[in-house]
Amino acid sequence: MRTIRWENGVVVTVDQSLLPRRLAFISLRNPRQVVKALKGMKIRGAPLIGAAAALALAQTAYKLKGKPKEKVLSELYRTARLVKAARPTAVNLFNAVDYVLRKAEEYHSDRDFAQYVVDVCLGFVEADAEINRMLGIHGAKLISPKDRILTHCNAGALATVEYGTALGVIREAREQGKSISVLATETRPLLQGARLTAFELKRMGVPFKLITDSMVGYVMYKGLVDKVIVGADRILSSGHVINKIGTYTIAVLAGRHGIPFYVAAPTTTFDLETPLDRVIIEERDAKEVLEVQGIRIAPRGVEALNPAFDITPPELVSAIITEKGVVKAKPDRIRSLLAR
Amino acid sequence: MRTIRWENGVVVTVDQSLLPRRLAFISLRNPRQVVKALKGMKIRGAPLIGAAAALALAQTAYKLKGKPKEKVLSELYRTARLVKAARPTAVNLFNAVDYVLRKAEEYHSDRDFAQYVVDVCLGFVEADAEINRMLGIHGAKLISPKDRILTHCNAGALATVEYGTALGVIREAREQGKSISVLATETRPLLQGARLTAFELKRMGVPFKLITDSMVGYVMYKGLVDKVIVGADRILSSGHVINKIGTYTIAVLAGRHGIPFYVAAPTTTFDLETPLDRVIIEERDAKEVLEVQGIRIAPRGVEALNPAFDITPPELVSAIITEKGVVKAKPDRIRSLLAR
Repeated sequence: MRTIRWENGVVVTVDQSLLPRRLAFISLRNPRQVVKALKGMKIRGAPLIGAAAALALAQTAYKLKGKPKEKVLSELYRTARLVKAARPTAVNLFNAVDYVLRKAEEYHSDRDFAQYVVDVCLGFVEADAEINRMLGIHGAKLISPKDRILTHCNAGALATVEYGTALGVIREAREQGKSISVLATETRPLLQGARLTAFELKRMGVPFKLITDSMVGYVMYKGLVDKVIVGADRILSSGHVINKIGTYTIAVLAGRHGIPFYVAAPTTTFDLETPLDRVIIEERDAKEVLEVQGIRIAPRGVEALNPAFDITPPELVSAIITEKGVVKAKPDRIRSLLAR
Repeated sequence: MRTIRWENGVVVTVDQSLLPRRLAFISLRNPRQVVKALKGMKIRGAPLIGAAAALALAQTAYKLKGKPKEKVLSELYRTARLVKAARPTAVNLFNAVDYVLRKAEEYHSDRDFAQYVVDVCLGFVEADAEINRMLGIHGAKLISPKDRILTHCNAGALATVEYGTALGVIREAREQGKSISVLATETRPLLQGARLTAFELKRMGVPFKLITDSMVGYVMYKGLVDKVIVGADRILSSGHVINKIGTYTIAVLAGRHGIPFYVAAPTTTFDLETPLDRVIIEERDAKEVLEVQGIRIAPRGVEALNPAFDITPPELVSAIITEKGVVKAKPDRIRSLLAR
């Protein structure tokens, strides 16, 4: 199942806010609708955010077929600004937009410019599925039969165009006949683990149990976890991993218990430019913490923090799994991997 | 405000499952009703569980006033068995029951035996409030002005007869004029932090913010926490602390960040008899994880773990705050404190 599709200028994607109750597809007819879906987290997951950004640019070009390059380019830059303002942390969004703009600037041929841009965007999206499949193959080598794997949030097919990153590794290991099982954290506040990862693991037929985020220490203490695999929203050149809030807590506990902690992410998730102290951690509406699926859980007037991500330092990361191979979270290793 | 009262044989207490929506008192007319309220966590919090157990025994004696000692004693033992089966982890329950039975066995006077037992039970409950006040005074010495304190679950007045343990320390520090602030974890699955601690802190007028359990690592990483104070459901002679699921995770993170981790508990929470490997961690209904306030969050057919407590080893505990003073989590220190 593809999580996002292009249908003659319309972006068709799963409304992830409705899962697991309902698997419904929404049709987004222009970049504004795509941005709204990104902000409302109907579309979420770093690689999928990147794909949606590329398709928003494709929509802009699609409507300007046959128009002069200058006109198309100026509209593309307008859409790029709009899309980049949707969410601040997942670098795939910025990388996708910058990739399309760079390719647009590089254009030199006789073909219609707008059509060329559409093709670039669709190619970017198409590549995501293949990238995840390669990532899964590299990652599965790290998995032993009978491994009990803990994962956080949702880094599955729903977070990507297809296949998934952390869950892509699990999917591939399973397809290789390794009889693994999974512990999935529910991932408050938005419950991507309970809603989305549980939905995917059930469909994949992988045995799993759900735990609250507060149970991570307990299950490690009890010896119920062999490996941790999570996704990433941004990986810095220093090896720092920015991912869903709660990831750092899990990494610290894995470190204490000597449990390997793997990060699975395509190379589009790397950000070699931004230094650690310039990373913006998105602070979302406190309502997401004070409510669960629209039900108020705290007294009126109470305030809450709601950082959407946290930062895991490289010394807690055993390795990063990418489509180009598995790499240590060290600056020189990362640079040479990306140069391949 | 008293959380639990005795009114001529009726136990009147807050129904904590309704907070913060409604502050309602329920009347429990016999030990069976008390046990049901304990199992359903309408009554929760280790010291309050102990008080409720004592009052269930008082109910049995109250109905047998004027009856011969043997008759009353055999009924007391029946109630004791019933009450001890309500919940397995909080040792205050067992300590309360054993205290009343020991006092009953020690009886030698001309007074009516049943009335004597009722007085023993009410005295036990009365002492809890005074114990917590003393605990608060000892604990407040550890608190500096402007401290930002992280607490987990609810160890407040609602977890005790009055005043609270961890929140009792915060209450006392506040009354001494120290301008502290609090970060309260929501404490999934049953949200005692979001529902009960938020309710109490709001009434106390202490500035605080709510966080999800997954944010503990983040707030420590960002330097937003000066001290951690939690309650306890059982403390072993070795210094191991059994408390609400998630406590161990917080202790590990506090250790990494060099943040003092304090446990506030009356001496009735100590269990010098049970070795670590004999401690029973209550496993509750998976529904508590799969639902939030009656709303299903995971797909049908999904399983979940639901341990209600975890175990924090003594090396992660900076000190234990009791009504007899502050003590290191070391066997010899604990034994000499309890002997005072």
